[in-house]
Amino acid sequence: MLAESPLWLILDLIGTFAFALNGALTAVRAARLDIVGVLALGMFTGLGGGTIRDILLDALPPATFVDWRYLAVAAAGGVIAFALSRFLDRLAKTINVLDAIGLSVFAVLGAYKALDMGFGVTQAVIVGAITAVGGGTIRDVMIGRIPTVLRSELYAIPALIGAGCAAAANSFGYQGTFAALGAALVCFAIRVVGMRFDLHAPQPPGRSGPA
Amino acid sequence: MLAESPLWLILDLIGTFAFALNGALTAVRAARLDIVGVLALGMFTGLGGGTIRDILLDALPPATFVDWRYLAVAAAGGVIAFALSRFLDRLAKTINVLDAIGLSVFAVLGAYKALDMGFGVTQAVIVGAITAVGGGTIRDVMIGRIPTVLRSELYAIPALIGAGCAAAANSFGYQGTFAALGAALVCFAIRVVGMRFDLHAPQPPGRSGPA
Amino acid sequence: MLAESPLWLILDLIGTFAFALNGALTAVRAARLDIVGVLALGMFTGLGGGTIRDILLDALPPATFVDWRYLAVAAAGGVIAFALSRFLDRLAKTINVLDAIGLSVFAVLGAYKALDMGFGVTQAVIVGAITAVGGGTIRDVMIGRIPTVLRSELYAIPALIGAGCAAAANSFGYQGTFAALGAALVCFAIRVVGMRFDLHAPQPPGRSGPA
Repeated sequence: MLAESPLWLILDLIGTFAFALNGALTAVRAARLDIVGVLALGMFTGLGGGTIRDILLDALPPATFVDWRYLAVAAAGGVIAFALSRFLDRLAKTINVLDAIGLSVFAVLGAYKALDMGFGVTQAVIVGAITAVGGGTIRDVMIGRIPTVLRSELYAIPALIGAGCAAAANSFGYQGTFAALGAALVCFAIRVVGMRFDLHAPQPPGRSGPA
Repeated sequence: MLAESPLWLILDLIGTFAFALNGALTAVRAARLDIVGVLALGMFTGLGGGTIRDILLDALPPATFVDWRYLAVAAAGGVIAFALSRFLDRLAKTINVLDAIGLSVFAVLGAYKALDMGFGVTQAVIVGAITAVGGGTIRDVMIGRIPTVLRSELYAIPALIGAGCAAAANSFGYQGTFAALGAALVCFAIRVVGMRFDLHAPQPPGRSGPA
Repeated sequence: MLAESPLWLILDLIGTFAFALNGALTAVRAARLDIVGVLALGMFTGLGGGTIRDILLDALPPATFVDWRYLAVAAAGGVIAFALSRFLDRLAKTINVLDAIGLSVFAVLGAYKALDMGFGVTQAVIVGAITAVGGGTIRDVMIGRIPTVLRSELYAIPALIGAGCAAAANSFGYQGTFAALGAALVCFAIRVVGMRFDLHAPQPPGRSGPA
């Protein structure tokens, strides 16, 4: 299992931390929450995608809930965001890069977990993308906001492509760390380029006037 | 298992398609979403009810997630809604009828699945109704709208009655396709009559003034 | 299993009823819902926390869904709230006390269920708190409101402390009814004192100006 190798465990924990930090910061900015709210939203953002993944794959109880390291890292992200939210505003670029790492790692590991459990390529791609965007979606719904992943930016699309590359590599017999790293890099590159040039996914024809 | 007979499979796929199409159209109208958002909301609307059903019945992974035909039909509904949303506005009546077919089929098949797995009549009725209205409820929550099923129209009530008829028929030993078709027809008829005459479920006494 | 002793079953049913009643009343006040909406939100509030608990603990189908007594008590709370919402406004204090009983019982029983199933102390505390606040959170999300538990009042904190006391007592070998009652009383006392003196959890530094 890829997720158990030290490199991927560390990447997965970095992603969880970045998602929790970013999720909690978004919550602090968008809504007046108390410490429970900030911590809870940080943890939902960091752990929510993996939880939905494990419900869909019938892999309950969720791996991130059982393993205290994920709980600890997600809680740490929430606490740091609560205490240092104003300071962290200045680190927005660094946090966005960490978030892009999380997106890439979650998409690829989610897809591999589905494949390891015997699901098909379509299911693996969907599960990879849901693992990557699920946490942020739960956060946005809880603070009364239409999930940004549904509205703007290239966020779900790099996740879908990264999960797709992982599933394709797997079909051709490339299952090791290098194939997974390559798939994650594809996702990461598209996400970073999308942020840099402010790219967006297409909107429905004839309805794309200003909001 | 009723859901495996060709007639019911086709009806179930028609319902999934209609829900996905209608869900995606609602999303296009109510919120500015990009193609990812429209497609995701179409798929949630088409597949969400069955997913909640399978969580409650401990039948994970969700049947509609494992079977590529449901995924394909739901994705097709989302893509068509994205591409043709303005044209489809003119077909509102046809889409509402397809949606009523989906409501009826989902309610009856959800109830039968619960009964087949050994759950009681109460559980079967609840699960049937949740299968029928769950997808639309997820969609509404995600676009920041109070679920229409909680507020207006006869939508959950025909589903409850249809599931109730299916469970009652089953208790009296009628388990075949005709009993199920009859239960679905009851649900369909109430829903269509409710739409035609704009009927609503009662509101709390003394609080029913204009919002 | 603690939840099967008559005392705890009765307390658990009282909590379910109070949550359903309170949840449905909140729904009536906050949003124009019809009878389906009020009843559904009452049942979600009463049964939602236990459902999330059983998903996280891999104890599906949810205990409260399988046992008709929980369904009946939650439905009764919703129906009473629908019919008598204006009269019940005068009983707000009594209902708040019943709600605090529910909070305490749900937190302690949730934690014990996790421990009984072999989960660790951290997981037990998280699950206890989620059991206690999950139903109200689902209700708030469905009526388009940022969950009050994330924003104000001492609500999640007593639940966390109550679940923590239960888990601590369990680690020291106190597993009987008295230890559980003590943990529930701690939660109840903090909740009631918090309501009486209008205490709130801390907000992020430098962001606590008026909303």
